[in-house]
Amino acid sequence: MTLILGIDPGSRITGFGVVRDTGRGCEYIASGCIRTGTGSLPERLQTVYRGVSEVIRQYGPITMGIEQVFMARNADSALKLGQARGAAIVAGAESGLEIAEYTATQVKQAIAGTGGADKQQVQMMVMHLLKLLQKPQIDASDALAIALCHAHHRQSLIPHGLTQAKRRSGRLRL
Amino acid sequence: MTLILGIDPGSRITGFGVVRDTGRGCEYIASGCIRTGTGSLPERLQTVYRGVSEVIRQYGPITMGIEQVFMARNADSALKLGQARGAAIVAGAESGLEIAEYTATQVKQAIAGTGGADKQQVQMMVMHLLKLLQKPQIDASDALAIALCHAHHRQSLIPHGLTQAKRRSGRLRL
Repeated sequence: MTLILGIDPGSRITGFGVVRDTGRGCEYIASGCIRTGTGSLPERLQTVYRGVSEVIRQYGPITMGIEQVFMARNADSALKLGQARGAAIVAGAESGLEIAEYTATQVKQAIAGTGGADKQQVQMMVMHLLKLLQKPQIDASDALAIALCHAHHRQSLIPHGLTQAKRRSGRLRL
Repeated sequence: MTLILGIDPGSRITGFGVVRDTGRGCEYIASGCIRTGTGSLPERLQTVYRGVSEVIRQYGPITMGIEQVFMARNADSALKLGQARGAAIVAGAESGLEIAEYTATQVKQAIAGTGGADKQQVQMMVMHLLKLLQKPQIDASDALAIALCHAHHRQSLIPHGLTQAKRRSGRLRL
């Protein structure tokens, strides 16, 4: 019964999703968006840091997945994304969570069975896997997909701080 | 007698410099480097966050200057720099410091009188302005230059949170 946090960081909107890994699949706990607003850069980064910290405090996940970025569109957007990502990762680390990174392909592969799935397919599979009746906002849905991917991978990897991981079958359980 | 922190963030080394603005110029207080080591990304970002927080706790600056990055070499290095920058800015903001950003040109202009000054010229001027007998490590020197630039600008700007700023003459006092 492990609570797992997924984070989809962005310079304007950071999505979060919390799922409970019951050992026989994952249940939806919460999801939402942290909107950074129009303040100064320090204020916006503090909003990400405090927002992620508050989600952790409220729901008590012990582990966090975050999307690994290989190619940003350009250096300017990469810098902005990196700043938000840094604020989110520090929030997780300061709250004592183990943190793992996943590529977009790994997330799609874990959720939809193929690394070539599009955003809509991933969103539909997130709804299906978590038995959601309503479509979550896209950033929240992406964060839930990362949380599900992390649930799928975390016991078969040996991430930072997790040394007593038990190996688990290689497929996402529906 | 304001204590001013300058931060030069980097994915491997984050330089810091603390100066005291006496009202008749700046005095050297401290400088150094936070080395992020070879751990996982969350560990490295936490090192930046905790390092900057510790410098603030130890020396008690009330305001912080950080270099504004316009053009990174490429998207990958921009992302890495952004993450370190995000961790450093959140550390400053969470410690209650007002934070201002300066372009490299503004820093060179304030220290060496010309935006076209090279790194060595800036380093020599930092040594001269702060009456240093030894050359500081280059990241520490850059951070001291940012602190001096911030000392120079902060009373003539109206940065975030500083509403009762008194205007001051537009030149750096030697």
